[in-house]
Amino acid sequence: MNETLKVIANRYSCRDFKNEMIPNDLLQAIAEAGIQAPSAMNRQPWRVIVVKDKELIQDMEAEGLSNLANMEDKSTYHRIMERGGKLFYNAPCMILVPINQAQYEAALLDCGILCQNITLAASSLGIANVICGLTRLAFSGQRGEEFSKRLGFPEGYVFGCSVLLGYANTTKAPHTPDQDKITIID
Amino acid sequence: MNETLKVIANRYSCRDFKNEMIPNDLLQAIAEAGIQAPSAMNRQPWRVIVVKDKELIQDMEAEGLSNLANMEDKSTYHRIMERGGKLFYNAPCMILVPINQAQYEAALLDCGILCQNITLAASSLGIANVICGLTRLAFSGQRGEEFSKRLGFPEGYVFGCSVLLGYANTTKAPHTPDQDKITIID
Repeated sequence: MNETLKVIANRYSCRDFKNEMIPNDLLQAIAEAGIQAPSAMNRQPWRVIVVKDKELIQDMEAEGLSNLANMEDKSTYHRIMERGGKLFYNAPCMILVPINQAQYEAALLDCGILCQNITLAASSLGIANVICGLTRLAFSGQRGEEFSKRLGFPEGYVFGCSVLLGYANTTKAPHTPDQDKITIID
Repeated sequence: MNETLKVIANRYSCRDFKNEMIPNDLLQAIAEAGIQAPSAMNRQPWRVIVVKDKELIQDMEAEGLSNLANMEDKSTYHRIMERGGKLFYNAPCMILVPINQAQYEAALLDCGILCQNITLAASSLGIANVICGLTRLAFSGQRGEEFSKRLGFPEGYVFGCSVLLGYANTTKAPHTPDQDKITIID
């Protein structure tokens, strides 16, 4: 296994971060990996917004939890509450990836491609990470527009996905790959 | 830059492949990287189908081109015809990633994450690659169900994306990253 295959195999989704900021040069390298992602017809229908502002992250978390609590289906709310009532697991840094709503489905796929560049770049640099779709909840209520503005989403862009970054407080093993999901057609 | 960052930075979308099959052990390593991808709530709403059957690939290409020619909007058809009339650029191998239609949007994002694991694993092993959404065209007409069956899509799964793999006949540079797409919020 080469280094890249090792990074892919050993990467895990961290859900417990230390209160310690990531140096700027590492964040820059991780963001750079993001914008190197391929996209359909090279349209690059995304942005890479690196948020180090703890207050803003906590504000989005509070709004997200509040919107979650108000949802009719309480299953996710109960799941989150059972595991500590955190959406962002004390991560000191979040990368948000808003996408072009006009190409929503293609852009979602492109967003996934970009997020994986970010997580693998981070893992290769010893930065723990988790792709966090739940950040979407901060944009689902009354304050969604306010957050879009504070974060600088371009006109016509909506939340696509986010990646939480930091140093692991506790680590865990990656999921066990399910070999049954692979088929070879000769 | 470590090896993983180099692979991310140097990876490019290959659109001209040699007529030369990839050894099975490399394909296995690439498929393995696919199923190591994280997914929302670890639902893994995807499959990794490695197609080495040249006739099947050509058959999907012919059907895709035919469906494309019959579309009202001819712009993609003209673009493809101008660059040689190929959807799959003579790639000897294609990995298809069908996704669970019941979770379509979340699964599209998860599909993008998985595809990038595949391209980076491939690039790290010297295998040229390109993410190919146009394979979707083979499923948009009358023969879509036939192909889904031949490929073994599980019940309720639809085309998500594909990655073409092979040895580069001609190489090119990756796209120039657009630094304006990065913002840091301190």
